Amino acid sequence: MPHSPNSPSDLRLLFGRRLREERRARNLTLEDVAEKSGLNWSYIAQIERGERNIGIDNIDTLAKALNVDPIDLMRHSSSY
Amino acid sequence: MPHSPNSPSDLRLLFGRRLREERRARNLTLEDVAEKSGLNWSYIAQIERGERNIGIDNIDTLAKALNVDPIDLMRHSSSY
Repeated sequence: MPHSPNSPSDLRLLFGRRLREERRARNLTLEDVAEKSGLNWSYIAQIERGERNIGIDNIDTLAKALNVDPIDLMRHSSSY
Repeated sequence: MPHSPNSPSDLRLLFGRRLREERRARNLTLEDVAEKSGLNWSYIAQIERGERNIGIDNIDTLAKALNVDPIDLMRHSSSY
């Protein structure tokens, strides 16, 4: 069944956690990623907390800003 | 930079192609996937063609409906 805005998918929550992990692993602030991606820093913060249903185009944009494969933002990291 | 609605990301186009591949590999129609996912069949058709910026919650929903890892919908298949 589709997810309601009040019940974020597991994938959404995983993506947010992994995005934060990869950002911090690069010692980047939200502002740094905002500058690299062209997205608003508060929007990125909401994504990291799983509060927004990010679209696939912005998944691509954020992955490129962090120089990471988008796939790696959707699976549990083996390096932590 | 963020993507405009008129310039779908590479990831969006890849996802659409892979979704169609995996659906056809299971001999499922758009209507079958609509029934399994609770999403509208014409919406799914637009996703397959890369015409919609699908949200991560619906990526999760469609992957579950096809019983495929969402990661496998975001990388080129090695089995075709």
